[in-house]
Amino acid sequence: MSQASIRVGMIGCGTVGSGVAQLLRDQKDLYTTRVGRTIELVAVLVRNVDKAKNTGLLQDIAVTNDPDAFFANDMDIVLEVAGGIDPISQYVQRALTAGCHVVTANKALLAAQGPELFRLAKQHNASIALEASCGGGIPIVTALTFGLMANRFEALYGILNGTCNYILTEMTQKGKTYETALAEAQEKGFAEADPAMDVSGQDAAQKLAILAAIAFGVQITEEQVHSIGINNLNLEDIQFGAELGYDIKLLAIAQQTNAGLSLGVRPCFIHADLPLAQVHGSFNALSVYGNATGHSMYYGRGAGQFPTAGAIVSDLLNLVGQGYAPAFGQMNLWPTDQPAATVASADELTSRFYLRVDVPDVPNVMAKLTRALGEAGISISAVMQHEIDAGNHVPVVILTHQARQGDVLKAIKAMKTQLSMPTEPTLIHIVDFPEG
Amino acid sequence: MSQASIRVGMIGCGTVGSGVAQLLRDQKDLYTTRVGRTIELVAVLVRNVDKAKNTGLLQDIAVTNDPDAFFANDMDIVLEVAGGIDPISQYVQRALTAGCHVVTANKALLAAQGPELFRLAKQHNASIALEASCGGGIPIVTALTFGLMANRFEALYGILNGTCNYILTEMTQKGKTYETALAEAQEKGFAEADPAMDVSGQDAAQKLAILAAIAFGVQITEEQVHSIGINNLNLEDIQFGAELGYDIKLLAIAQQTNAGLSLGVRPCFIHADLPLAQVHGSFNALSVYGNATGHSMYYGRGAGQFPTAGAIVSDLLNLVGQGYAPAFGQMNLWPTDQPAATVASADELTSRFYLRVDVPDVPNVMAKLTRALGEAGISISAVMQHEIDAGNHVPVVILTHQARQGDVLKAIKAMKTQLSMPTEPTLIHIVDFPEG
Repeated sequence: MSQASIRVGMIGCGTVGSGVAQLLRDQKDLYTTRVGRTIELVAVLVRNVDKAKNTGLLQDIAVTNDPDAFFANDMDIVLEVAGGIDPISQYVQRALTAGCHVVTANKALLAAQGPELFRLAKQHNASIALEASCGGGIPIVTALTFGLMANRFEALYGILNGTCNYILTEMTQKGKTYETALAEAQEKGFAEADPAMDVSGQDAAQKLAILAAIAFGVQITEEQVHSIGINNLNLEDIQFGAELGYDIKLLAIAQQTNAGLSLGVRPCFIHADLPLAQVHGSFNALSVYGNATGHSMYYGRGAGQFPTAGAIVSDLLNLVGQGYAPAFGQMNLWPTDQPAATVASADELTSRFYLRVDVPDVPNVMAKLTRALGEAGISISAVMQHEIDAGNHVPVVILTHQARQGDVLKAIKAMKTQLSMPTEPTLIHIVDFPEG
Repeated sequence: MSQASIRVGMIGCGTVGSGVAQLLRDQKDLYTTRVGRTIELVAVLVRNVDKAKNTGLLQDIAVTNDPDAFFANDMDIVLEVAGGIDPISQYVQRALTAGCHVVTANKALLAAQGPELFRLAKQHNASIALEASCGGGIPIVTALTFGLMANRFEALYGILNGTCNYILTEMTQKGKTYETALAEAQEKGFAEADPAMDVSGQDAAQKLAILAAIAFGVQITEEQVHSIGINNLNLEDIQFGAELGYDIKLLAIAQQTNAGLSLGVRPCFIHADLPLAQVHGSFNALSVYGNATGHSMYYGRGAGQFPTAGAIVSDLLNLVGQGYAPAFGQMNLWPTDQPAATVASADELTSRFYLRVDVPDVPNVMAKLTRALGEAGISISAVMQHEIDAGNHVPVVILTHQARQGDVLKAIKAMKTQLSMPTEPTLIHIVDFPEG
């Protein structure tokens, strides 16, 4: 890295990229004071040069759509805010191979190719900084890798997708259906036109794969995160849960268990008075349990132009300030050569469960349901059956004590052989948090 | 720093110190994996050698009560967990002068002598790491100095004293008086036998002085933080506030205003559905507002053996991992040569206010109260007067719209000239948080 000013290149100049350019322009003096050097954005690689120039933020900057022209610039650090895997992965590799440090917001890339990229970085004395890839503006990667480093981590519980949290908040607080809440989220720009990545839980699973790899020091692929989205949730279940004192959240959970590392993204009921239950709308949060610190929680905006741009620029400043690169080189922060995670089977997961079955309104039904559970060794903590106005099926809600998921699934199978059910039973985890 | 193992000395071995020794012993392998070097605790300086040895944690470690013998050891890093200013300041200076990095939990020392110590550190190419001094186990110093570095900070709102938060939680949730709640906190070890440092707000003021200096890049002394404790709070006011939808919290607030930096610690009413209102018992939290990230919040244990020891050891690992020392040398993280803060006078502070006056139950009282406010240019948002059972004085609660504190105090003075009041009026800030 040159001693004078720091020369920065940027790949991509959409919403986040133009936020980065604006911060670097408007806060230039503050950043020079903080890190002792000036930072110059010298080159930008985009697909559409005119569109990038029209932001009005790139005067005197070499804007190009030609990767060769971009990499011909003398650069110390490359910011990657384009997203997607191809061709971005090649660009990132090219930057690292040239010895440039890379700052990236690209969770899909990291979840798919993290270990290879980190290995390549170390080989060329470069670093990869990735705060912006998980939790937008909330510095949770910094917390896990530096602030909480003394801890043997026990569990992570995250609300990591703002789109889902917005939809669930609207369903919970305003009684909207999933479809209505999603349509409104799309109108307000909180959800994409194709919301599949978000509502399926895949986006949260990618983030969890990265955070859990860092916290537990093992290699994790996105496919190892068992993922259930919010797209099949019924308003009815959210309302039954509320009657029982629970809020619904899409939780990304990584947890050490006797059967291995349990990794999952799924809608969960949590007690309405817990800190994570207070995370509303498009906000994100991560609860971390460590053997020294106990419970700590990180809360803020999980997405958005300036929160994400702020994370990119914070990483950049930490590279310029010379703290990050030596730590990246020396510390074993990233699981490059560690073993792959031993992942616990979802069947082995123990939890309390919320089970709703729609059953015929005839004698002996409750006996059949409870016997199926009893025979699977599952004990019941609460049962709720409301009177109904019409129809010949009635929803029965059963809460279990701690049970193995595999046993619960077995009991449900038994119920289905004995009773006609017009709809699939609904099974939702009730999450109890550790003492912390 | 030698390339092989890292030699560590520790000053003090009480609750936090023995937590540090235990973590270094029990997690040795984990730490070696994380930072690529082994860490050896080689020497401990204490007042009472026998007591320290009785912890059973200091086998093969040179334990002494003689500073000269302690400093005769070859050490790379010194951990200071003794507390107090004299003679600890001399020890810290001696360590820095010898080129040892110092990790400290000593907020009183930093609040009193921070700039001098940081200057001395830089002079000798040493660093000072201070995560444990503010907010115990919550990595808020790391967040402000690294994770959020791209931000121009706008405001900090902290619940920084666990003793006070425990007492206020008991008063709010269980209707206990201040005296009862304090006595219970002392029994449970959440409050010292002499609780003055905590309940007066001084402890929170020291922490705020440090955090605000870092966030705003100016020098701040503890005396510049206008501080009101919880020791004069009445249960009655907490209950009136609850009726109006507010929770009471001892907030440490640092905020950029037109009149300068506003710094204060005081009991405040905040909306019961805000994230900070969910911080109960001995937990701490810091809400940070920055121009890029918007609102982010950090929550966890503000004190206790292992949370604090974890912060000390995390700082130690970041020094060993070589990230912290170069950043400390290069970045302008600490206000050593920056100007002193321009502090806004408390009179200039604008806020909404809760005012309770006990006034004679006679005609025309309300007119006099509201006229006094009106003449000072203050408008009223709510008035509450309950029927009373006995006595000839009645509590009247008035909530104002945004008003200058100086004007409110003037109005109170006017009220007192016109009405007999058996007790001093109670004035509590109602804090509205920025959009973030």
